[in-house]
Amino acid sequence: MYKIIHYPPNTAIDYARPKLVKSWVGPLENTEYTCNLTVHIEFEPIGRRGDCPSDSSLLECARYLGVDIVSICGGVGDCGRCIVQILKGKVSPLTDNERQLLDKAMIAKGYRLACRTIPLGDILVKVPPQSLSTPQRTQVEGEEITVKPASSVTVCPVSLKPATLADLQADAERLRESPDIKNKVKISNFDIAILREISPELRLKKWQIQAAVRDGEVVALLPLNRNPLGLAVDLGTSKIAVYLMDLTSGKTLALRGLMNPQISYGEDIIARMALANRGTEQAKLLQELVVAAINEAIIEMCNETKKSPSDIADAVLVANTAMHHLFLRLPIGQLARAPYIATVSSAIDVKARDIGLKIASGAYMHFLPNIAGYVGADHVAAILSTGIYKEDSITMVLDIGTNTEICLANHRKLTSLSCASGPAFEGAHIKSGMRAADGAIEHVKLVSDKVEYQTIGGVAPVGLCGSAILDTLAQLFLAGIVDASGKIKPHPRVRENNGTREFVLVYGNKQDEARPDITFTQRDIRELQLAKGAIRTGIEVLLESNKLKYRDIDSILIAGAFGSYIDVASAVAIGMLPNLPLERFRQVGNAAGMGAKLALISRHQRAIAQEIGTRVQYIDLSSAPQFSRIFNKAINLG
Amino acid sequence: MYKIIHYPPNTAIDYARPKLVKSWVGPLENTEYTCNLTVHIEFEPIGRRGDCPSDSSLLECARYLGVDIVSICGGVGDCGRCIVQILKGKVSPLTDNERQLLDKAMIAKGYRLACRTIPLGDILVKVPPQSLSTPQRTQVEGEEITVKPASSVTVCPVSLKPATLADLQADAERLRESPDIKNKVKISNFDIAILREISPELRLKKWQIQAAVRDGEVVALLPLNRNPLGLAVDLGTSKIAVYLMDLTSGKTLALRGLMNPQISYGEDIIARMALANRGTEQAKLLQELVVAAINEAIIEMCNETKKSPSDIADAVLVANTAMHHLFLRLPIGQLARAPYIATVSSAIDVKARDIGLKIASGAYMHFLPNIAGYVGADHVAAILSTGIYKEDSITMVLDIGTNTEICLANHRKLTSLSCASGPAFEGAHIKSGMRAADGAIEHVKLVSDKVEYQTIGGVAPVGLCGSAILDTLAQLFLAGIVDASGKIKPHPRVRENNGTREFVLVYGNKQDEARPDITFTQRDIRELQLAKGAIRTGIEVLLESNKLKYRDIDSILIAGAFGSYIDVASAVAIGMLPNLPLERFRQVGNAAGMGAKLALISRHQRAIAQEIGTRVQYIDLSSAPQFSRIFNKAINLG
Repeated sequence: MYKIIHYPPNTAIDYARPKLVKSWVGPLENTEYTCNLTVHIEFEPIGRRGDCPSDSSLLECARYLGVDIVSICGGVGDCGRCIVQILKGKVSPLTDNERQLLDKAMIAKGYRLACRTIPLGDILVKVPPQSLSTPQRTQVEGEEITVKPASSVTVCPVSLKPATLADLQADAERLRESPDIKNKVKISNFDIAILREISPELRLKKWQIQAAVRDGEVVALLPLNRNPLGLAVDLGTSKIAVYLMDLTSGKTLALRGLMNPQISYGEDIIARMALANRGTEQAKLLQELVVAAINEAIIEMCNETKKSPSDIADAVLVANTAMHHLFLRLPIGQLARAPYIATVSSAIDVKARDIGLKIASGAYMHFLPNIAGYVGADHVAAILSTGIYKEDSITMVLDIGTNTEICLANHRKLTSLSCASGPAFEGAHIKSGMRAADGAIEHVKLVSDKVEYQTIGGVAPVGLCGSAILDTLAQLFLAGIVDASGKIKPHPRVRENNGTREFVLVYGNKQDEARPDITFTQRDIRELQLAKGAIRTGIEVLLESNKLKYRDIDSILIAGAFGSYIDVASAVAIGMLPNLPLERFRQVGNAAGMGAKLALISRHQRAIAQEIGTRVQYIDLSSAPQFSRIFNKAINLG
Repeated sequence: MYKIIHYPPNTAIDYARPKLVKSWVGPLENTEYTCNLTVHIEFEPIGRRGDCPSDSSLLECARYLGVDIVSICGGVGDCGRCIVQILKGKVSPLTDNERQLLDKAMIAKGYRLACRTIPLGDILVKVPPQSLSTPQRTQVEGEEITVKPASSVTVCPVSLKPATLADLQADAERLRESPDIKNKVKISNFDIAILREISPELRLKKWQIQAAVRDGEVVALLPLNRNPLGLAVDLGTSKIAVYLMDLTSGKTLALRGLMNPQISYGEDIIARMALANRGTEQAKLLQELVVAAINEAIIEMCNETKKSPSDIADAVLVANTAMHHLFLRLPIGQLARAPYIATVSSAIDVKARDIGLKIASGAYMHFLPNIAGYVGADHVAAILSTGIYKEDSITMVLDIGTNTEICLANHRKLTSLSCASGPAFEGAHIKSGMRAADGAIEHVKLVSDKVEYQTIGGVAPVGLCGSAILDTLAQLFLAGIVDASGKIKPHPRVRENNGTREFVLVYGNKQDEARPDITFTQRDIRELQLAKGAIRTGIEVLLESNKLKYRDIDSILIAGAFGSYIDVASAVAIGMLPNLPLERFRQVGNAAGMGAKLALISRHQRAIAQEIGTRVQYIDLSSAPQFSRIFNKAINLG
């Protein structure tokens, strides 16, 4: 039932508004595609309406009309997040997935999963706020570490004698042989794109120019008196942080945090890998979405700072291994199934134009090394920027997400692993869960029987984001309402619903469908126990493999967006993190992004990153012998 | 009045049948283009007919309908070769160019220049055989020189252990670290295109594969037991020679000689440079025409030899500097006007995919060095393959064409220059001149008052190709019908026509328009004197600059297509070549193509070529002080 959404060939891709094209087969070029636009759909309360293909799911129709409905599983009927209410018109019959994921009461009121519902005529649909994918908080800031800028790109200002009939030297050689260059760098190669620019540029600029040289190759031609720029990208599964840097001063000139537009095709990386694996066109689509988003960010940042994208002479990207492969359009099949083998783990350099990035025409993008299928370059970047690789202490760095990567630095010995912590902290599989968007409760406190909370944007609450989910579990456990095994005890706010116990955090408004009860269910707790158990197991396996106890840890650095917003005390309270004095924890923000910046502005840092890639010892957690013993204990709270 | 012919965006370019699109403005993508097909045109005697845009020249209409009419000037009304006869229908009035270039008698019979004539309604046109551009003889063979094959590409067969949960090494590193590779080459870089292939290929081929490595970079993955292939290209202004080579054995597997499809846009390189200089789209068009022709030749040669284009792991191209720049789509403006500066003269390596060549996805194309704006890599290749750079003798190598490049090797000291010999030997500006196609007289002998001749294809004569033009002049001079100053003397076959003397070689058939008189005019002789004078001046300037007399020359090697077919005795008789014993001359065929092959199969030869590029001393003939003194003498015959 999973439907692939194609772009018409040669359409400029607007990543915010994917267009749906049906029955498109054959190679990209010269292919007829037809849209049978026959069903009129109106989405409330946003008031968007239009004609859609008659046999597409409501989720596809929403994308077609530019309505961003949340979908974590990518539209396979699995995550239960794309809930909509059919107000008028005929739709396809209820599916088994919907019976499992939706309350009977909701079904009675016409609630459906958008990805499972096909309009059978003109319809009117209501999209509840929880189902609307609004811009999310993105963590772009991290701890600034100052290193001496020493970029991979050397910029040489040159002043050349013009060519004459008495001096017929070719332009490229004239540049290469000029003393201004020769005394600084040896040019061994000209990029074809630079050769295409050099002759008119030299004449236009009256033979005064700057050559940006990288590893003996001219990669950009800049006007005099302009510093070369650099681009650092931390490409996350859900968020992208983009930094525009001055390569000479090492300063951040501008930055952007954006949603990863691939989210329309599944918030879950597994769904995207499955899509990419279906064919090169699908893989191309996923890649182009991200490239278009980054290109747009580049233009915005350059406009903001009055710079030119053609002055961006170098770039660095970090990502997890799957995102790295999707971004480079590397094959994904062998990475998506056991034994989860990456195509390449070393650092690589790729011409930015070969990816579609619009920066200096000869510039490269450098990709930091991956360690394994589930421990990627973003982890290496975090190790780099936190400096744990060189410290004479026992330090751990964690980046909590659907996969949580942890590195233990034991007096320069680095051991890393990844644990499948699942998307529960991103609100998936949690009844009242939602992403960190407006209306999400972000912090929760139980004061006797009262629930105190705080929402993002200060608006009325519609659900719980990750940090609030963690707080709720910790508060219920500390109050004895949930016991160590995770069982909900009787309490005035605890009720039975569909045979499951749930704790009511916020009583909604029965008259207002958009203000439902916000509850925390027994099933939610089971999901969270699996997540917290996985993370704690990762920590324990790392300690055991290093013959250490958790009390030996000097510090724990918590990186990443989720880690930046959580209450560490809550994480310690439920036993997700070890019970250490709170001052041993530090929330370091976007450590991966900081690592990308370091590798961009300093070739020494880039070399260290490559060395980290080879130094890290990787443990495959799922095949670790002690896994089940530790995990069975770690799922308990406290 | 010169009209640019565009392709509709995204149309697969059929270089044999360019399509005409009018009123197309704006960027390539997303642009509407319209064809106003309103005039019906029929071309006789080939019987091609169809609707054409109403306000296009007949030359453009001919191209549009796939009728290849000769045009040396590219359609600017200058060369007078695109003669057609209007049999029925109204056309635009006669232009000044036509009055200058056509006889009054011809004009009276409805003859016009196709490039100057616009149909004003439906018309019937006759294309005389001389105006039809038929496939031309192409010189692809040269003297085989055997060198030990030592290609730039090293092929390593590898047998890898499959990845398992206990051995998670990434695919690229698994290949790089395997003993089969490590003992042979050091891999420092993977091309992005190869990374996109490696994972599925390794699994498909059960971890048995061959890696083709060039300068530490994997450029192709081959199945086991298949030799890597190479592609050598000699890209001439009018002809292209393409060779498919076995890089291991150094053997030529297949070869093709083809017309340069850019000829539709001007046989003259100057016309094409002017076109390319108009904008990037025009430059792109010219480049894509050649690339498509080469790609087609690759497919044909691979089909013929049952090989795969993806096994072509290396390529070499030689061309004159202008064709080199057009092929790489380098800027042409500074090359087309004084002081004629090349963008780059060193040898360069470009990813074949960046040019559009369809060979192994990571393969490079190597471009031999250029020497100056009018002495290109094809000249370097000829110096390489003839071996004159290393010989302890005084040897000259000439490639006669519109520009004639000459190198004098004086005991390893190399001096080169180019002389503007003009297109007279290609039949341009010669009244009965034509290209070396069927019906062209190729050899002429005067036996008392009788003219003996031989035609290509053994058919009835329609004109004179280059070698016959040379023979005719020599025969008339030796018979005293033309004196040393080039003046035609009275003779039974000499007549006055339009105020000019002409010698009638073949009396045509007055009843048959397609069988005109074939004559040799006073004006033709003046053109040839300029051409021969330029070449002889080049030879003399080279000798003077080396303080040599022509009798010191040990041997003269004549390279190229024209040089292969000429009668050396004729060239000596008119004084184009010095009066040396005939055994000192050798016609060496396509020496440039041979040089490309050598540089392909041997990296040592490639290095020598680069060295030749820097060793050759270039003389700019036009600014040489002795030029006019020598030239004024050299235009005389004998």
